Amino acid sequence: MKKVVLAYSGGLDTSVAIQWLKDQGYAVVAVCLDVGEGKDLTHIKEKALTVGAVESYIIDAKDEFADDYALMSLQAHTWYEQKYPLVSALSRPLIAKKLVEIAEETGATAVAHGCTGKGNDQVRFEVSFNALNPDLEVLAPVREWAWSREEEIEYAKEKNIPIPIGLDSPFSIDQNLWGRANECGILENPWATPPEDAYDLTVSLENTPDVADTIEIEFVAGVPTTLNGKQYKLSEMILELNSLAGKHGVGRIDHIENRLVGIKSREVYEIPGAHTLLLAHKELEDLTLVKELAHFKPVVEKQLTELIYNGLWFSPLRDALQAFIKETQQYVNGTVRVKLFKGHAIVEGRKSPNSLYDEKLATYTKEDEFNHNSAVGFIELFGLPTKVNSIVNNNSKKVSN
Amino acid sequence: MKKVVLAYSGGLDTSVAIQWLKDQGYAVVAVCLDVGEGKDLTHIKEKALTVGAVESYIIDAKDEFADDYALMSLQAHTWYEQKYPLVSALSRPLIAKKLVEIAEETGATAVAHGCTGKGNDQVRFEVSFNALNPDLEVLAPVREWAWSREEEIEYAKEKNIPIPIGLDSPFSIDQNLWGRANECGILENPWATPPEDAYDLTVSLENTPDVADTIEIEFVAGVPTTLNGKQYKLSEMILELNSLAGKHGVGRIDHIENRLVGIKSREVYEIPGAHTLLLAHKELEDLTLVKELAHFKPVVEKQLTELIYNGLWFSPLRDALQAFIKETQQYVNGTVRVKLFKGHAIVEGRKSPNSLYDEKLATYTKEDEFNHNSAVGFIELFGLPTKVNSIVNNNSKKVSN
Amino acid sequence: MKKVVLAYSGGLDTSVAIQWLKDQGYAVVAVCLDVGEGKDLTHIKEKALTVGAVESYIIDAKDEFADDYALMSLQAHTWYEQKYPLVSALSRPLIAKKLVEIAEETGATAVAHGCTGKGNDQVRFEVSFNALNPDLEVLAPVREWAWSREEEIEYAKEKNIPIPIGLDSPFSIDQNLWGRANECGILENPWATPPEDAYDLTVSLENTPDVADTIEIEFVAGVPTTLNGKQYKLSEMILELNSLAGKHGVGRIDHIENRLVGIKSREVYEIPGAHTLLLAHKELEDLTLVKELAHFKPVVEKQLTELIYNGLWFSPLRDALQAFIKETQQYVNGTVRVKLFKGHAIVEGRKSPNSLYDEKLATYTKEDEFNHNSAVGFIELFGLPTKVNSIVNNNSKKVSN
Amino acid sequence: MKKVVLAYSGGLDTSVAIQWLKDQGYAVVAVCLDVGEGKDLTHIKEKALTVGAVESYIIDAKDEFADDYALMSLQAHTWYEQKYPLVSALSRPLIAKKLVEIAEETGATAVAHGCTGKGNDQVRFEVSFNALNPDLEVLAPVREWAWSREEEIEYAKEKNIPIPIGLDSPFSIDQNLWGRANECGILENPWATPPEDAYDLTVSLENTPDVADTIEIEFVAGVPTTLNGKQYKLSEMILELNSLAGKHGVGRIDHIENRLVGIKSREVYEIPGAHTLLLAHKELEDLTLVKELAHFKPVVEKQLTELIYNGLWFSPLRDALQAFIKETQQYVNGTVRVKLFKGHAIVEGRKSPNSLYDEKLATYTKEDEFNHNSAVGFIELFGLPTKVNSIVNNNSKKVSN
Repeated sequence: MKKVVLAYSGGLDTSVAIQWLKDQGYAVVAVCLDVGEGKDLTHIKEKALTVGAVESYIIDAKDEFADDYALMSLQAHTWYEQKYPLVSALSRPLIAKKLVEIAEETGATAVAHGCTGKGNDQVRFEVSFNALNPDLEVLAPVREWAWSREEEIEYAKEKNIPIPIGLDSPFSIDQNLWGRANECGILENPWATPPEDAYDLTVSLENTPDVADTIEIEFVAGVPTTLNGKQYKLSEMILELNSLAGKHGVGRIDHIENRLVGIKSREVYEIPGAHTLLLAHKELEDLTLVKELAHFKPVVEKQLTELIYNGLWFSPLRDALQAFIKETQQYVNGTVRVKLFKGHAIVEGRKSPNSLYDEKLATYTKEDEFNHNSAVGFIELFGLPTKVNSIVNNNSKKVSN
Repeated sequence: MKKVVLAYSGGLDTSVAIQWLKDQGYAVVAVCLDVGEGKDLTHIKEKALTVGAVESYIIDAKDEFADDYALMSLQAHTWYEQKYPLVSALSRPLIAKKLVEIAEETGATAVAHGCTGKGNDQVRFEVSFNALNPDLEVLAPVREWAWSREEEIEYAKEKNIPIPIGLDSPFSIDQNLWGRANECGILENPWATPPEDAYDLTVSLENTPDVADTIEIEFVAGVPTTLNGKQYKLSEMILELNSLAGKHGVGRIDHIENRLVGIKSREVYEIPGAHTLLLAHKELEDLTLVKELAHFKPVVEKQLTELIYNGLWFSPLRDALQAFIKETQQYVNGTVRVKLFKGHAIVEGRKSPNSLYDEKLATYTKEDEFNHNSAVGFIELFGLPTKVNSIVNNNSKKVSN
Repeated sequence: MKKVVLAYSGGLDTSVAIQWLKDQGYAVVAVCLDVGEGKDLTHIKEKALTVGAVESYIIDAKDEFADDYALMSLQAHTWYEQKYPLVSALSRPLIAKKLVEIAEETGATAVAHGCTGKGNDQVRFEVSFNALNPDLEVLAPVREWAWSREEEIEYAKEKNIPIPIGLDSPFSIDQNLWGRANECGILENPWATPPEDAYDLTVSLENTPDVADTIEIEFVAGVPTTLNGKQYKLSEMILELNSLAGKHGVGRIDHIENRLVGIKSREVYEIPGAHTLLLAHKELEDLTLVKELAHFKPVVEKQLTELIYNGLWFSPLRDALQAFIKETQQYVNGTVRVKLFKGHAIVEGRKSPNSLYDEKLATYTKEDEFNHNSAVGFIELFGLPTKVNSIVNNNSKKVSN
Repeated sequence: MKKVVLAYSGGLDTSVAIQWLKDQGYAVVAVCLDVGEGKDLTHIKEKALTVGAVESYIIDAKDEFADDYALMSLQAHTWYEQKYPLVSALSRPLIAKKLVEIAEETGATAVAHGCTGKGNDQVRFEVSFNALNPDLEVLAPVREWAWSREEEIEYAKEKNIPIPIGLDSPFSIDQNLWGRANECGILENPWATPPEDAYDLTVSLENTPDVADTIEIEFVAGVPTTLNGKQYKLSEMILELNSLAGKHGVGRIDHIENRLVGIKSREVYEIPGAHTLLLAHKELEDLTLVKELAHFKPVVEKQLTELIYNGLWFSPLRDALQAFIKETQQYVNGTVRVKLFKGHAIVEGRKSPNSLYDEKLATYTKEDEFNHNSAVGFIELFGLPTKVNSIVNNNSKKVSN
């Protein structure tokens, strides 16, 4: 009997998928990853077996997700379309990797995911599967059966698959420790204000405390290591900041985005911890990266962001981009002071042993060590192409006329 | 007698410069531009004559500044180092242009500015002068005399130049309708929180109203034309939004930036109107620009931003970049609803006759018109290079080992 | 009866397609464009009617192709993967445009092309059709019938469709005045040297003349206008240079390229005229474009090249990129002297009224007008970030240790 | 007595500089690097002492230059302005590094170079010195004394410094194993054809052999290791190819380039070995790099090229860019067959164990394994943004009207 490893979430779609795959003649191995959704996943393991899986695994992948995926997002400032730093796009390659590992361990010949046919995640899963083990068959039961919600429920009832409560929620949610993504329902109208119940990790501005929290985050080689002087491993740092910054309403995003599959969609994200860390990290880079590096890194970041968004995590290009990013992080050491207040993570101060800000050069007091005369020669040569162009092409006429 | 046209601000430096230039044998024509500092400039015209100018002009350049400079910043999202959308860098080329025009009209053979030797503005002025009329001599009295503050005051007293009150302000400020820049004093310590008196256009978060203002801005071809249904010319729209958004504390920026002249400096900016307009404009582009355009425009924007920051406004490259930007704005029509609250300008809704968001394609309801089956072929070809790479280079081994 | 407009070449595939479309119930309007293949196309018009078309058109589109498509390739230096300046990718959007025009004029409800399912051209056609008139049905008979060559010939015989002689040629060729593309046969082995009969427009190096031809090309605003002092319209200039430069073996390209549809393929191109014009045009830009423009234009060029290659000619992004390019060409005036010899188009001299090369600045003779002292200040500020970085980060240790 | 380490070439300028530095009170340590000029440098060591140096060193740096500098140029395809792959810009940082090392070893407090004030090399030297040891004083005697040629000769005679024969050569030449750069004299007129005596490494096309040489170069991880089956270390491979390809006239370049110091200059380069290796390496990358990597690597290459040209070799940005490049080279294994003939290095075949060219996917024979049906779905989603844009913005009108 052919064996398939399925990315299992415990929800209706993937529960039905277990049965449906059985109908197609597969033994189903259910795998559920904990990447920091903040839910208790233990019952999910049981549920998979109940609805027909032959094996069921729960994998705590929070640390691997934080260290290898969220950290890359942090250090590379992966703001897709300048708006949100990737959420689902970061977890999909890791889930794919674990599925492939389990397929290879359990002798499965296929892997499966529960995505529909119009999202980005199907692409991310399938390209990752192909990258990691092109010999595995890839199945996409939800996309293939193409049932309406009613047909799916009918099938579930017939097969004794429990129907989750709250199935009538208008929203479609994906969450990991780096953030929470929400779409569907009223959000599909881009003129509509997202309703308060679309949010979960963040308090509404109207209900945030009237007193700020000011925190200090220390970075070592681009990795946040301590919060208010206390050591954290990265996954727990992020979760702690989700809580701290979420309380102040930090990190709501409302985005009309371009999907890889050719449509625009409207998504609502919450990223309290990621927002705080990303701003703090950027400030430390502003202090410590030399100008030409600071001005080119965004080009690499944009490419890496789009690559990850598009599901090409397991690409040689990602390795090369990541090698660039890693090389830059040796300078990103120091401490950032952040005020969390009314939806803001305001960086109020930053200091670093690698600081390239030189008060003696920058000051306008008599401590000034900058050589003002150098400017004359600098401007002459810096402006020389413009001057020659002007003489030749008579730009002066343009002004007069 | 040689005649020089001086960019005059009414402050101590340029007042002293008038006398100093007279000492060097120049007749001085003082020119002061109103680019929306929000100050009464009429007395400045008189003061220039009092301290020794032979002619004095006040030019209301608010509309030209708004329409030709601030609008370019708005449409091109000119966030320098992803942090601030240019303030002084936008007004310098316009001031230079007016000075050159007046020099040509009055028969002056020289132009002069009051910048020191370590800032960006000296470069912007001088490169612009050279671009517009390379025959004009360029003078930089403040850079040349290299006096300490005390020496300058001594000279001023000797020459009966009035010493402004408030000269002991620690800050150095430049302002126009697009924003206000502040540096020096305590700000020179990047670990120090900017004090409240460093700000002028924005209310502190602690003192903002507890009730939001929600506004609607309509754009036509990328130009904001109405605010809450009322027509505004652009300069007045920006000023009105400075007031409205400033009241809610919107648009404070604290930035460690890389100057053109090779140092890092710390600046504090306030851009309440610009912040609001930039966010609204971007949201409308997210709705109306086709994906490949939305993904390349930031490359052009970055180049344009650095070009303007570096003082190369009057460059053929600016013309070409601007031609690109202008071509894109035909699609940017529609209305954006913005909630001003607690330092935020939150875009809550956006609509457009050019909206490329198609609810029938994006929806997960049964109205769905997206062809889910197309994804299979799409993923197969999109992922084909990755798959071939995997087969050839045995990436699968990486996972297993 | 439904009417379809078919891109007709006179070859077997599209002849069979006429019949096949008839079988599906369509009246077929055949359209053949002359974009400079250098073949006599008059008999093709007849042939279409003979094999079953209800209407047949031959359109001389050489000038439109030269002025609107080849010229963009020339001015934007559209070297795909730094190797070849696009050939088929330039003609496909024009053919699509003409088909849509004729469909609208003749009341057709569908358009059709003869491409297979693994090339780029199917994408270029279909995306262009959708861009120009999304209401038209798009048909791809060759892709759809999926016959082997033998099955196709059998069908042709059955339907009395004449089988062209030379059908056993191993090569698959597409040609227009900008160049000739060849694939298939022995070329499919990337280790194999392309055989001499893969080429048609160029003489082999071994058989080129031992005496060079030296020509002068004059450009006005980036458009080549005269050759050796004689005025040419662009289409004829290109054809004349194909002949002149082809005789000297100029412009052979052998390329392993990445197709849009996910595979690498090996193609052989011949572009004698394009090669000569592209080199000459670049040299004139080297002389006339100001540095910052010369250094950013390639970024725009790369984007435009990939956009066109990928079939997105009718994209708002192309309009914007083209606006950039057009703005730059006002400076590209002057004359280039080119030696055609042994497969080379060697630019030996260039001159321009817009030349920014200033002999008085560049010279090392006593005519030198460059201010050598300016360099001291320039280097000090240009190198300041590096110096501060060194002091802070102790790079000096790296050398010593 | 203060000690200075001088980059010594044996020519008039640096010989005079030894005396001039003595006049200024320095003990001079002369250092001459062999980076593959192909000249005998042993007498230079003596000459330095003769004209007044207290110590004199000849350093054979050919291997370090080849392995750390030329190889980076090869793997990163550093074609400055798409025309020449850097020559002097590659050796300057290495010379600076050796000078700093010797200064640190010999207790010198200063370093010196013999560049004038209008070239790029002064910047490259001085920025490198600052990067490596910012405590060292930097001297530029030739720029500082600002003598005419006549004054310099007079001083030389007075100080008994021998005047080299051939001093009346019109050209100014710099050479290393990666190439030879030539400027000045008749070359200063961009309309003039470079005379034959401007060249040294390459035979004129008219005098090249009528029989081609066909060679095979094997690369391992992007490094050329064997030529025609014989192992070479890199420095010797390059020199051997300079000879082999130079005989066939390969690698002449005539370039109007934009210098860092604001002027355009005209240079003539010869790079027979570099040209051959660069073309061969690119072909192997075309075969082995996955598409998205092949399309982004040029962006990194352009940045690296301009960085090196501008003298910022010892920048953290170079480290990061190099980390990217290095990561990509693991795939660049295989063999390239090159025909050297009449000034061409024609790649006729390439093969690799990492080849991503898949004949079974690319073929149009019945071996075809490409799924043609996938294209339908691919085109539908790839073209969807264009289609929606068309429907919304009525592009179809543009064609009809």
